Amino acid sequence: MQPHTHPHEAATLPLKRPQKISPDLPIGVFDSGLGGLTIVRAMRKLLPQESILYFGDIARLPYGTKSKEQILRFSVENTQFLLHKGIKALVIACNSSASAAYDFLRRTSDLPVVDVISPAVEEALRVTRSGRIGVIGTQATIDSGAYQKALRAKNPKLSVVSAACPLLVPIVEEGAVPQKIQKAAVEHYLAPLKKHRMDTLILGCTHYPMLKKVLQAAVGPRVTLVDSARPCVAKLRAHLEQSGLAAPLKKRGRLHVFVSDLPRSFTRLGENFLQEKLGRVTVVR
Amino acid sequence: MQPHTHPHEAATLPLKRPQKISPDLPIGVFDSGLGGLTIVRAMRKLLPQESILYFGDIARLPYGTKSKEQILRFSVENTQFLLHKGIKALVIACNSSASAAYDFLRRTSDLPVVDVISPAVEEALRVTRSGRIGVIGTQATIDSGAYQKALRAKNPKLSVVSAACPLLVPIVEEGAVPQKIQKAAVEHYLAPLKKHRMDTLILGCTHYPMLKKVLQAAVGPRVTLVDSARPCVAKLRAHLEQSGLAAPLKKRGRLHVFVSDLPRSFTRLGENFLQEKLGRVTVVR
Repeated sequence: MQPHTHPHEAATLPLKRPQKISPDLPIGVFDSGLGGLTIVRAMRKLLPQESILYFGDIARLPYGTKSKEQILRFSVENTQFLLHKGIKALVIACNSSASAAYDFLRRTSDLPVVDVISPAVEEALRVTRSGRIGVIGTQATIDSGAYQKALRAKNPKLSVVSAACPLLVPIVEEGAVPQKIQKAAVEHYLAPLKKHRMDTLILGCTHYPMLKKVLQAAVGPRVTLVDSARPCVAKLRAHLEQSGLAAPLKKRGRLHVFVSDLPRSFTRLGENFLQEKLGRVTVVR
Repeated sequence: MQPHTHPHEAATLPLKRPQKISPDLPIGVFDSGLGGLTIVRAMRKLLPQESILYFGDIARLPYGTKSKEQILRFSVENTQFLLHKGIKALVIACNSSASAAYDFLRRTSDLPVVDVISPAVEEALRVTRSGRIGVIGTQATIDSGAYQKALRAKNPKLSVVSAACPLLVPIVEEGAVPQKIQKAAVEHYLAPLKKHRMDTLILGCTHYPMLKKVLQAAVGPRVTLVDSARPCVAKLRAHLEQSGLAAPLKKRGRLHVFVSDLPRSFTRLGENFLQEKLGRVTVVR
């Protein structure tokens, strides 16, 4: 094998926003596809006055099976797209992107950047009693060790086990997989974690809240599931308030969804994630 | 929804090969990822003297969940890449690409183009006794109706049923999914086809030969599975011989694999598909 890659090529791309930052601008959110709409759903509930530009990179989805270099590159391109549309803050609503690109994007962007990993880590630390924490995510997220490192940096005594669950994203994206198969897949991936006697399980992928019932049934009622949507939006709200960028509470914000492809199943699935009508959807190539 | 797409924009791309066609040139093969290596495996066995340039578009994989326009665009880009490397014939080793782009690529390229759909259709017509044929594939392949149309064009009296099986590609790509889950997924997708009392089942995706045992067990011994690898290579051989482009039987041809991303699991999985060492692998972005 002779791989010729240029992992830091992405770092040469400009990441300056082209206009003055102001409270009237929307918040930019990106994900590899539709999973990030579970974050948007929480934003619509908790920050209803904020307008949102969402970019779902459906043409290149999923990210979680790809290399860190590739995910970093995709994440930078998505961020540039949103910056050029005009945003006041950026939400990385994809754990695979957060694990590969959060440090880079935070370092190189001059607006508030919120990811989904650090808020979930803080929430898990708040709820655990035993210090025994499980993490599930895509192959890329788990291989990156982002959750494991962030948890241990906060408290080296924590006992953390993790498992990559590659089939769970396709199961959610298909939207109509029988419970029996969902259950078999979830039980297969969670078996090694259950032996760990965790009291907290971090859902380290924005698709997984769609499988919450099956996941909770598999781990039993004593394990608390931590999903990043609410803690992520709470962190975003704090950022906006601190920087004087919160939108005035006048009216409900708009949601404009951009996608890099529009497969037939898009609307049904998207509205399932979002739990509201999708409204305006624009395809960009 | 206001989708703004330009489905025929891809058609403006030049598809001329940059050099003179000759028997010494390799054969170009592309797929969305690794599935096409099941075709390469048959080529290495049946046409051992031929050299092969393989391109696997792992960065944008899978194709089967995406729109026809997007798959056409990706397929044209992959073909351009191979044409510029220098090839004497093109194999579209991906059913989703074949369903979206075969007609276009055959019409616009000036070298032999072989896909995986028409050879499998001819093989199915050869083996069926009852004229009751089943087809399984990705969402894109089944939605395109490519198999259904090609079969009925050959014989309007055929009774054809089809089913999209979105989870089977991720199951094969993961490489270590327990038999129990493979079996549950296969039985779920095949249930409506089994009622049809087919005697032939076309595996309309180059990943599916990896699940042959589970598929055969699910449909029973009376159903013949048709996989496109051998008929596709037979058609390619005929094309090469007719056009005087077959390589001389001097020595074993070379295989050079190009990929648009290189995830950690690549080598293990690729060698599983190919059943030989991968040799030289180059990442192109």
